[in-house]
Amino acid sequence: MPHIPLPEHLPGITGLLEYRLDTAMPIRDLTQILLRGESSLTEGERELIATIVSSRNCTNFCEAAHTKAADLLLGESETARLVKLDFESAPVSDKMKALLNIAALTQKSGKAVSGEAIERAKKAGASDLEIHDTVLIAALFCLYNKYVDGLATVAPADPAFYQTLGERIVARGYMRPPGGYSKPA
Amino acid sequence: MPHIPLPEHLPGITGLLEYRLDTAMPIRDLTQILLRGESSLTEGERELIATIVSSRNCTNFCEAAHTKAADLLLGESETARLVKLDFESAPVSDKMKALLNIAALTQKSGKAVSGEAIERAKKAGASDLEIHDTVLIAALFCLYNKYVDGLATVAPADPAFYQTLGERIVARGYMRPPGGYSKPA
Repeated sequence: MPHIPLPEHLPGITGLLEYRLDTAMPIRDLTQILLRGESSLTEGERELIATIVSSRNCTNFCEAAHTKAADLLLGESETARLVKLDFESAPVSDKMKALLNIAALTQKSGKAVSGEAIERAKKAGASDLEIHDTVLIAALFCLYNKYVDGLATVAPADPAFYQTLGERIVARGYMRPPGGYSKPA
Repeated sequence: MPHIPLPEHLPGITGLLEYRLDTAMPIRDLTQILLRGESSLTEGERELIATIVSSRNCTNFCEAAHTKAADLLLGESETARLVKLDFESAPVSDKMKALLNIAALTQKSGKAVSGEAIERAKKAGASDLEIHDTVLIAALFCLYNKYVDGLATVAPADPAFYQTLGERIVARGYMRPPGGYSKPA
């Protein structure tokens, strides 16, 4: 049960983003810019960064939602699964491995992001902006994970929930639907 | 030296917020709403939450800046110092001790925020919204700390820098000054 009263039909982050709409708006804006705005990283690659951070923070709701979004964007479900298991041997580019490493280090601690990890990413062709965005996406998902777990929100067990949520994220992005969320009948 | 090229006259978070203005805007908005918007917590109390989280993440820049902001808002420098040392014996209300405990647990991990910690805060008179805001402020400062440290920004050693920054934060809040920051002559 959540630590504060949240609508039962809106589990995980969805209820929190309706609880306080004024703080939700900039959180949604930042996510939309970073994960769906113009970038030399694909939307699927950016969802993989969100996924590995949420997975390492053990935030089931966010991990399941962004794994599904990555799966839908990549058109298969092996890459996200293997990235979470061991990104060094996952079927992604050397540049993505280096960026996932930076994301994983950021999840541990900002201070863990070493000069060596940055050099590796630059040698693999990552731009300064890609490195910047990787750190900021990882930091943002640490915010999300702490927000979702810190208030003890509920993570549904039914995979169908995340299928629907993933489809919505892919089709409509991270902004609030006009009129909000109606309560199911 | 920062991991990406940042203007030398803008250390810590200040250079990052100028590096990518589109992502900076919602980060500034969220901070302004949470730390300066309407709240039953004083601005000084909210700066103490930012301070304890930054202190526990060992992010020198953010710790120094928000300690100074708290000092200026509280009119003395003992409370912030003692809160960082041991909030349980610091000269703050029982409600603030319970909220600082929630902030410190959120810094560790969202899952560390126990039902007991929430009950303690409620018994001490904390509202659901105060609990929500405490978790979100703590999560936001974990984002800031990971962003600032993950890109290896510089923290000036001169206390005068944080005096000036603290005064600016207290007087003008967290929004970008019109026209940005001019380079010193």
